Amino acid sequence: MSTVTAFAAPSATEPLSTITIERREVGPYDVLIDIEFCGICHSDIHTVRGEWGPIPYPLAPGHEIVGTVAAVGSAVSKHQVGDRVGVGCLVNSCGECENCLAGQQQHCLNGSVGTYAATDRDGTVTQGGYSTQVVVVEDFVLKIPDGIDPAAAAPLLCAGITTYSPLRHWGAGPGKRVAVIGLGGLGHMAVKLAAAMGAEVTVLSQSLKKQEDGLRLGATDYYATSDPDTFTQLKGRFDLIINTVSAAIDINAFLALLRLNGTLVIVGAPPEPMPVQAFSLSSNRSSFAGSNIGGIPETQEMLDFCAEHGLASDVEVIGADKINEAYERVLASDVRYRFVIDISTLRGAA
Amino acid sequence: MSTVTAFAAPSATEPLSTITIERREVGPYDVLIDIEFCGICHSDIHTVRGEWGPIPYPLAPGHEIVGTVAAVGSAVSKHQVGDRVGVGCLVNSCGECENCLAGQQQHCLNGSVGTYAATDRDGTVTQGGYSTQVVVVEDFVLKIPDGIDPAAAAPLLCAGITTYSPLRHWGAGPGKRVAVIGLGGLGHMAVKLAAAMGAEVTVLSQSLKKQEDGLRLGATDYYATSDPDTFTQLKGRFDLIINTVSAAIDINAFLALLRLNGTLVIVGAPPEPMPVQAFSLSSNRSSFAGSNIGGIPETQEMLDFCAEHGLASDVEVIGADKINEAYERVLASDVRYRFVIDISTLRGAA
Repeated sequence: MSTVTAFAAPSATEPLSTITIERREVGPYDVLIDIEFCGICHSDIHTVRGEWGPIPYPLAPGHEIVGTVAAVGSAVSKHQVGDRVGVGCLVNSCGECENCLAGQQQHCLNGSVGTYAATDRDGTVTQGGYSTQVVVVEDFVLKIPDGIDPAAAAPLLCAGITTYSPLRHWGAGPGKRVAVIGLGGLGHMAVKLAAAMGAEVTVLSQSLKKQEDGLRLGATDYYATSDPDTFTQLKGRFDLIINTVSAAIDINAFLALLRLNGTLVIVGAPPEPMPVQAFSLSSNRSSFAGSNIGGIPETQEMLDFCAEHGLASDVEVIGADKINEAYERVLASDVRYRFVIDISTLRGAA
Repeated sequence: MSTVTAFAAPSATEPLSTITIERREVGPYDVLIDIEFCGICHSDIHTVRGEWGPIPYPLAPGHEIVGTVAAVGSAVSKHQVGDRVGVGCLVNSCGECENCLAGQQQHCLNGSVGTYAATDRDGTVTQGGYSTQVVVVEDFVLKIPDGIDPAAAAPLLCAGITTYSPLRHWGAGPGKRVAVIGLGGLGHMAVKLAAAMGAEVTVLSQSLKKQEDGLRLGATDYYATSDPDTFTQLKGRFDLIINTVSAAIDINAFLALLRLNGTLVIVGAPPEPMPVQAFSLSSNRSSFAGSNIGGIPETQEMLDFCAEHGLASDVEVIGADKINEAYERVLASDVRYRFVIDISTLRGAA
């Protein structure tokens, strides 16, 4: 085992602070990564504050990790020392069930292992990327293609794949009209990716405050959902709607914006049940669906797609000492569009 | 205009009785049909009792119509006098919108015309198949293939297409596991059709009362949803679940029975909103969808499929004088599996 510096929550109510945590020895299939950048995802905040259930403390969150390979185990064949690599929301799964074999490790029937606050297959509790190093089995380590800025690449590992996967699964592309509800960390990636796939993209945001940004990111249209006319004007318009908003919205009102055979996908996790009217689904053969990150092969495909299309996240890079402040700004939607921690500010800090 | 005998509801609260109604003159594109049989659909009861909103009285319901062509208009090319034909839930649509052009007349963007209680494109109110004759534009008249018993064919025009369409759309076939919730008029057709398509079919019914029937109709498995163990045993099992029950059910419990990328489709119309948890959708990339009958080309395809596979509905044929009694038995689920009115009992009755 080795000791590394991390920035962690001591409890659900205290601010995060610098501590040391232990990383396992590099096993035969393991990759040791020197972390360069780690994105701040809204899930980090929910988790460390215990809003999604009890967790073990102290906990270092972070599942948008970019770094370079510092060491590899004796049996590692996929990565070499010096490679720039990434780690997303998953660090392990059984590898044997039908979903794992289909490359859908996030739906592992024996339980996939999250990058933090999860119990790994060896029984240890996982600690995330707000730390100087991490040890991950090679199959869950992604290659960051050349040409993507490493800080801007970090949010692709969660926000990128979370939006890429449903866009691909439900066929976003030329001739398809895609709407994105909410222009935040997830939403801004959904707009960029859908536009790069060739779809016609509309942003549905509460107000027109970020309209200029939305159009710059690739949307052709931008509507305020606070204006009731929006729902009249856009009735029956979209093949696919990606809802990136975790707050409660009127699902039936948005289902009415779907074209025949359209799908509304939620990628956030509204805590309350959403009441759906039968007519909202049957009147237009609509589907109401959910999607949860993506599998490892698709995450690599997404990274390669981003490199090919010159895409990455719009980020604000901060030092570790600004993490607590950044949390408050995330909760206030005051970031365009993702905070990324420069992990070099953590080195030597413990 | 011509006057024909019908069995109609005088009001929302009175029993149906014999009256005369008017049918329009046979226009150039019209087909006059001597009705032989008409199925009794649960929708007939909801509609005549005003449970789905106010309707014009007197009203003759019925949208599972089989008969023979008695006359055709001068421009009719698709049907000939003497042909055995059918009419389902639709008798007209605009024919010009993108959905009509795609053969999805039930989703006509300018409003499709229902077989009864609807305003037709000429401004008249449509009257259904509990009557001796009907006049319908040729494009909405289906061919009943030789070899299907005409009484047993009648319910195919609604119950058949309502279940065939989602089974086809969501890919029921070899290697797919399909569950059917409810074994009534719709459910028994869903089981027969899905089995004929090559899927492995499971019935999910409140009790095991109809288990023998379910297996005879083509299901390989039959489970009682009143038994909580059912939901443990079948977790993650199905690619497609067709919910034929209009009563409120726990949608989240049934969503948990879906395999990765599975779909739960409602073909009934529960009146209350259904609360859906985000996790129920995202944990398995599940879809919750609705489907509403089918278009005219697909209805013909379904009839041809049934003829090819020797399928039709299990029916109890009754005289018109038993319709009111049959309504009560439908409401008590006391029919296996569809009442069909022998319209010959109505001739000369007025």
